[in-house]
Amino acid sequence: MDKVYLDHAATTPVFPEVAEAMYDILLHHHGNPSSPHFCGRDAKGYLDEARGQVAALIGAAPEEIFFTSGGTEADNIAVFGSAAAAGDKKHVITSAVEHHAVLDSCQELARLGYDLTVLPVDAYGLVHVEDLQASLRPDTFLVSIMHANNEVGSVNPIKELAAAAHQAGALFHVDAVQSVGKIPVNVTDLDVDMLTYSSHKINGPKGVGALYKRQDVPICRRVFGGGQERQLRSGTENMPGIVGFGKAAALTAQRWQAEMAECRRLRDLLVELTLTRIPHSRLNGHPTQRLPHNANLSFDYIEGEALLLYLDLAGVACSAGSACSSGSSTPSHVLTAMGLEDRWLHSALRFSLGYGVTEEQIRYTAQLLQEKVEQLRMASPFYQGK
Amino acid sequence: MDKVYLDHAATTPVFPEVAEAMYDILLHHHGNPSSPHFCGRDAKGYLDEARGQVAALIGAAPEEIFFTSGGTEADNIAVFGSAAAAGDKKHVITSAVEHHAVLDSCQELARLGYDLTVLPVDAYGLVHVEDLQASLRPDTFLVSIMHANNEVGSVNPIKELAAAAHQAGALFHVDAVQSVGKIPVNVTDLDVDMLTYSSHKINGPKGVGALYKRQDVPICRRVFGGGQERQLRSGTENMPGIVGFGKAAALTAQRWQAEMAECRRLRDLLVELTLTRIPHSRLNGHPTQRLPHNANLSFDYIEGEALLLYLDLAGVACSAGSACSSGSSTPSHVLTAMGLEDRWLHSALRFSLGYGVTEEQIRYTAQLLQEKVEQLRMASPFYQGK
Repeated sequence: MDKVYLDHAATTPVFPEVAEAMYDILLHHHGNPSSPHFCGRDAKGYLDEARGQVAALIGAAPEEIFFTSGGTEADNIAVFGSAAAAGDKKHVITSAVEHHAVLDSCQELARLGYDLTVLPVDAYGLVHVEDLQASLRPDTFLVSIMHANNEVGSVNPIKELAAAAHQAGALFHVDAVQSVGKIPVNVTDLDVDMLTYSSHKINGPKGVGALYKRQDVPICRRVFGGGQERQLRSGTENMPGIVGFGKAAALTAQRWQAEMAECRRLRDLLVELTLTRIPHSRLNGHPTQRLPHNANLSFDYIEGEALLLYLDLAGVACSAGSACSSGSSTPSHVLTAMGLEDRWLHSALRFSLGYGVTEEQIRYTAQLLQEKVEQLRMASPFYQGK
Repeated sequence: MDKVYLDHAATTPVFPEVAEAMYDILLHHHGNPSSPHFCGRDAKGYLDEARGQVAALIGAAPEEIFFTSGGTEADNIAVFGSAAAAGDKKHVITSAVEHHAVLDSCQELARLGYDLTVLPVDAYGLVHVEDLQASLRPDTFLVSIMHANNEVGSVNPIKELAAAAHQAGALFHVDAVQSVGKIPVNVTDLDVDMLTYSSHKINGPKGVGALYKRQDVPICRRVFGGGQERQLRSGTENMPGIVGFGKAAALTAQRWQAEMAECRRLRDLLVELTLTRIPHSRLNGHPTQRLPHNANLSFDYIEGEALLLYLDLAGVACSAGSACSSGSSTPSHVLTAMGLEDRWLHSALRFSLGYGVTEEQIRYTAQLLQEKVEQLRMASPFYQGK
């Protein structure tokens, strides 16, 4: 068996067409889109085309798209930019299971004197509209809640949450880094004011993302300089990255529904094989209201990190928690907020599928999981099943 | 004559070897360097290699390099990050001819309640050490002065300026975006605390840059998230961009001295042909203490923008002011700070040379300049030479 990559929530392989488009830009279209000569106009054409492709993927207008260096920067601009534009309003609401790009930004606001409410989640990792409604105040300027969780894949009721925020006069930002290209994401349907998404989660290059911002939403710039991206985000545009993002967005728009149907089938197979063949295992997150490519599984009596290492040695890549927090020994803040018992918390692994994953790979992985979990349990002083 | 690109200060063509290295990363090494499995370790190896290459170009250690989305973000981190770490110190010093990434960041600090001193420059665009010394105060936390100016190419005495800042207990940051790869830039020789440089000015891709920060220099993070770049700059690393930057840095280290000698020869030829053949023309900036590839020329009785258009139509790309401020009708803040008379201010064009520029192209450009300046002057009601 070749290597098996089941960590598509961390990052995805680049579509070959994306690499080709970037190579062409790199070699043949080096202009700075701000330059007023033929070379700049050439680059500007590619920039405009990519903006249209990226906008179309979420049903936005090109002028509502601001390119950033990735999801993290887009989240930071949404949080800090709306805070700076909020005047006397000083209250921000987020959830306990957000990506650190939102959570840590909100905590920085709290350090600077803002009021912060961190909403709890239920046992599936979902935010409840009633909890949001009870927390909204006249001085709430922003509610930032993720569409789908990066660890357990649970999908929040964004439309309802955004409506509640709007009813209280607050802006609504959604981090949709994990959901775009996996489930339907349309800014009109969701009725959100700002939305973050990222190229490298949809088979585009790393280093580029975008903030969607409805045109009438006032936010302040966070990066100061030459005034690119209509004054909101200065810095010479990442042309190869942006063109790659555009191409990936266009291809994703064509392919995602068929691909995610296949991912769902294979993911369900992995979950079924695991839960039926490995005793004391469980699926974390919501059983149905979840991303089609995500399986977050726990195995009692073992350490997730140890199992990860075993799988890695056997050529299967998956994740314990998110890639961003790997290397840290603190348990996942997501699973902790969901109230998981220690035995499930410390033995959780995330398997995330994507383009190129085959049934053979999934069956191999399920078989391997069964073997390695058994091996590790045999070595555990606490396991009574041996 | 094919198109002639004389706007290398705005951005540079990508070395083919750089495009190849990026293509390889895109197609064959898609891992997230934060992932603890084989795919992440593979990416991490490339990240480490690039960090070493980028560090070596300025004589830094790899652990002193923090990758950013470009020069602008690196400048922002230096200014805002040192302000946030400065405690009771509330005074920052910069110069009137800085790039907007530094100047506007310092002005934002002033808006937030900090004290800002903007140092004047002389008629060549140079900052004088005595002016800095007279402005330093016990509560000055940062001095940020550019190495070489992006419009006129004048090279500041950074070593002396940094020494003055240090004597007063202030940190020194230098924006070296324009000087790296053009003149010697070594952080030990210059003895600076922080230094900004950018990939796309040295024939690498757009969308990636770096902040050098001496290890004992305390600054606060500006971007919040997963904690990449040793907690200073969160966000999944721009792997294709960083690898391209690394390759460009390695090639620049080998090539820059020979190439800049040739650029200097051709630039001097362009200046000589212009000044001897076009009456009422002048070179802006310092005659010798300037970047070897930069010629900023003014032509009395004409509008620079009109000449730029004529040259563009004839296939020669150059710049009026910097690319970043193109499209704005306000005159260059650099030339204004140098005290240029209106007639030189409004008729200035920047020609910046680089890899691939030939003597034939330069002679063609000089000839074209002579013709087009003459044409425009003939149409001017103020020109008496007709």
